[in-house]
Amino acid sequence: MCQLLGMNSRLPASLTLSFSGFSQRGGCTDHHADGWGIAFFESDGDEASEPGRGVRHFVDKDSAATSPIAQMLRSYPIKSHNVVAHVRKATVGAVNLQNCHPFVRELWGRYWVFAHNGDLKDYDPPLHGNFRPVGTTDSERAFCWLLQELAKSHAAVPTVEELTLTLTELVPQIARYGSFNFLLSNGLALWAHASTRLHYVLRQHPFPEVRLKDDDISVDLSELNGPQDRLAVVVTEPLTTNEDWVAMQPGELRVFVGGRAGLRDSGASQPLSA
Amino acid sequence: MCQLLGMNSRLPASLTLSFSGFSQRGGCTDHHADGWGIAFFESDGDEASEPGRGVRHFVDKDSAATSPIAQMLRSYPIKSHNVVAHVRKATVGAVNLQNCHPFVRELWGRYWVFAHNGDLKDYDPPLHGNFRPVGTTDSERAFCWLLQELAKSHAAVPTVEELTLTLTELVPQIARYGSFNFLLSNGLALWAHASTRLHYVLRQHPFPEVRLKDDDISVDLSELNGPQDRLAVVVTEPLTTNEDWVAMQPGELRVFVGGRAGLRDSGASQPLSA
Repeated sequence: MCQLLGMNSRLPASLTLSFSGFSQRGGCTDHHADGWGIAFFESDGDEASEPGRGVRHFVDKDSAATSPIAQMLRSYPIKSHNVVAHVRKATVGAVNLQNCHPFVRELWGRYWVFAHNGDLKDYDPPLHGNFRPVGTTDSERAFCWLLQELAKSHAAVPTVEELTLTLTELVPQIARYGSFNFLLSNGLALWAHASTRLHYVLRQHPFPEVRLKDDDISVDLSELNGPQDRLAVVVTEPLTTNEDWVAMQPGELRVFVGGRAGLRDSGASQPLSA
Repeated sequence: MCQLLGMNSRLPASLTLSFSGFSQRGGCTDHHADGWGIAFFESDGDEASEPGRGVRHFVDKDSAATSPIAQMLRSYPIKSHNVVAHVRKATVGAVNLQNCHPFVRELWGRYWVFAHNGDLKDYDPPLHGNFRPVGTTDSERAFCWLLQELAKSHAAVPTVEELTLTLTELVPQIARYGSFNFLLSNGLALWAHASTRLHYVLRQHPFPEVRLKDDDISVDLSELNGPQDRLAVVVTEPLTTNEDWVAMQPGELRVFVGGRAGLRDSGASQPLSA
């Protein structure tokens, strides 16, 4: 799969992943041995409290096709507003647990989750702050630097709009080192940055179909199809052929809140308020 | 169960947890709805590299008896040198994912895992550093304060001995607020502090039996029984009746490395080197 998958929805959506058919995608036939991971932000179930404070984080350095954790996730839909998943094709760093995306850190009393697709050449940023990589990937270094710089720019969790503006300044400083497609979430929003390949689709009731599928990944959204349902799916490669997947432009940073694309979405943009 | 479980072993041990028999323990018959969690430190498999950099972290706010994640762990032994588990009886803080132990943070490029059993009354330490609680428990506040103060005392990962000395100074400052039984690990060692109830046992080849069991928890160590195997198990209540469980004294802090008890273990102590 070699790809990123993100979801942002207005109402908690049950996302079920199925890792199968690894053999059919050219050039990536054995990459499923390179580890995978997924993080789900979870809310209290209490409508009044701030959403997405809790996070479930699953990583495995073994094949997603045979992993008992992946198998468990296939039969256990987790309801979430914000999901970040990654299947890793190891390019930099050994294949071990600490190098599996997504990475998780805490900042301002919120968990942050980050997954990266691409290569950053000779990227060794000054990490003098409070976030240090545990593994050896360029990706985790980029994540640590982003959080370090966010922490310098704001004293507490800023609004999604403010965060997006800050990220707009920070991200190009990393992207010039190479290919920097990434997904980032703090449980309140999902940010996506395209450097080479990243697509998204916005879905609103009535959904044209309830199942996204390609050879590698299947996202079961069958529970979701009410009038209030609205969600965004962001992936490296489009998962369906009959929907209007938008190819993000190189250098484009986009934020998704409440299942809508916000800010730099000049086309079908809608206000960030859900 | 209402209890902590920690394991520290010389060689990676497969620890399989079974959550059953919740109905038999007086006073705790329904606490299994209060969430549970477990963290496993994992090594590369490469003997040459530093152990325990990767961590697998599973938390669930639902019953351990019915949780699909707990079910998966029952059939999927994870090999680890250091394990910290907790089944939560909610006393402070709502029952939600962000309040489930163990908690995980990164410091000095290593993951740290912490679980607490007890109550800290009116404990609201000054958290001016880099670690903020995401949830609302006294336990996570204590963990954040410990890491904040460790970060002040050392510039990078110190030796286990140095860390133990620093913890010996810090822990009493929290323990005076109430009951502070905890387990802490950074993948290199397991620290246990007793305030009211905590027991440990040291096991060496040949083990008297290969299965620890009580009504609530079963730890399958059947793979472990070679001449090189040596491990320590730390729990709130002893799991077997035919072994020499040591009741830790109030205020006692103990470190386990390579399956041995170190430092303040004046009785059966052995050098920390494995």
